Amino acid sequence: MAEAEDAGRHKAKMEKRKAHQDAKLRDKTIEKGLLIVNTGPGKGKSTAAFGLALRMLGYGRRVGVVQFIKGAWHTGEKDALARFGDLVAWHAMGEGFTWETQDKARDIAAAERAWQRSRELMADPSFGLVILDELNIALRYEYLDLASVVEALSARRPDLHVVVTGRNVKPELIEAADLVTEMGQVKHHFAAGVKAQQGIEF
Amino acid sequence: MAEAEDAGRHKAKMEKRKAHQDAKLRDKTIEKGLLIVNTGPGKGKSTAAFGLALRMLGYGRRVGVVQFIKGAWHTGEKDALARFGDLVAWHAMGEGFTWETQDKARDIAAAERAWQRSRELMADPSFGLVILDELNIALRYEYLDLASVVEALSARRPDLHVVVTGRNVKPELIEAADLVTEMGQVKHHFAAGVKAQQGIEF
Repeated sequence: MAEAEDAGRHKAKMEKRKAHQDAKLRDKTIEKGLLIVNTGPGKGKSTAAFGLALRMLGYGRRVGVVQFIKGAWHTGEKDALARFGDLVAWHAMGEGFTWETQDKARDIAAAERAWQRSRELMADPSFGLVILDELNIALRYEYLDLASVVEALSARRPDLHVVVTGRNVKPELIEAADLVTEMGQVKHHFAAGVKAQQGIEF
Repeated sequence: MAEAEDAGRHKAKMEKRKAHQDAKLRDKTIEKGLLIVNTGPGKGKSTAAFGLALRMLGYGRRVGVVQFIKGAWHTGEKDALARFGDLVAWHAMGEGFTWETQDKARDIAAAERAWQRSRELMADPSFGLVILDELNIALRYEYLDLASVVEALSARRPDLHVVVTGRNVKPELIEAADLVTEMGQVKHHFAAGVKAQQGIEF
């Protein structure tokens, strides 16, 4: 008896919730290419971008990746995406972290080359998604002109999705974006002495 | 002259930073299978888990996925991962959102089946990563016993990585986890009337 009542109350509550959800869905009618930003100190910014790449690839749409910091080094995601052949265009244009190169002029030149490649990919209508990995880092250090980057991102094709990753996103980029997620660090294994591991960090 | 000085200062600063980074790396020596939680109201919880799957697959390691809410419906990530054949075991065991089923007993039975499958995958040494997608939802609604779930996750094989996703993670699960990331919503396109789109939301 009590169980039947509970089930009845649950059903009534969920019917109400369903009506509410349906109403919310009806209000959303716009389709457009999104400017997406994944920022914050936590893990998952680039990883979520690659997860989105996977989703796009599932529909047979082409994905372009430009990495602003990572260079020739080996990563699992790069190897895995190689399986999709021509659907993925992967450009690791970085020369490593600023503390590795120790050369600001070289960092700026690398950022400019990466941005040039980004513009080429964004102009190519065969791409459904372009990932600009760690672009926020290049913007933070002022290796690129913020205003012209934001202008070019805002002027993207109406059906092109772009994901920008990296900590410390500039407010002007938040303003231009459709979706901004801040990855916050609640607990991190590095603090417990765990090292970067294959398949997790790279 | 000013430029050369600036370059010199930059180099000195980066040398110091490099020494600091190297020291940090030296302190991290532990290798272990991580219990990872992606929670919070923002986007990217499941997406980052699938990005991690991609990284693992790049090293030829098997990935298991159990979905606690999503059922038979079509998603891009599922199609894309099908390309990896036997390396991916995908189990969509949900029956939809609680407001769709409107049947608590049915939701509980589905959660229990999904958890049973999760335990089987975690016990199978061929898997390097197991993703328990939206397990937090089943725990939040008390469809599963929290203590025994946390116990089983904590007793996982030493080299098995597990990712748990979903909003409103329980404090006991944070306690047991190695890495917890909170996805925070800074700006969301749904609020601007944009609908869920192929390749982005599903």
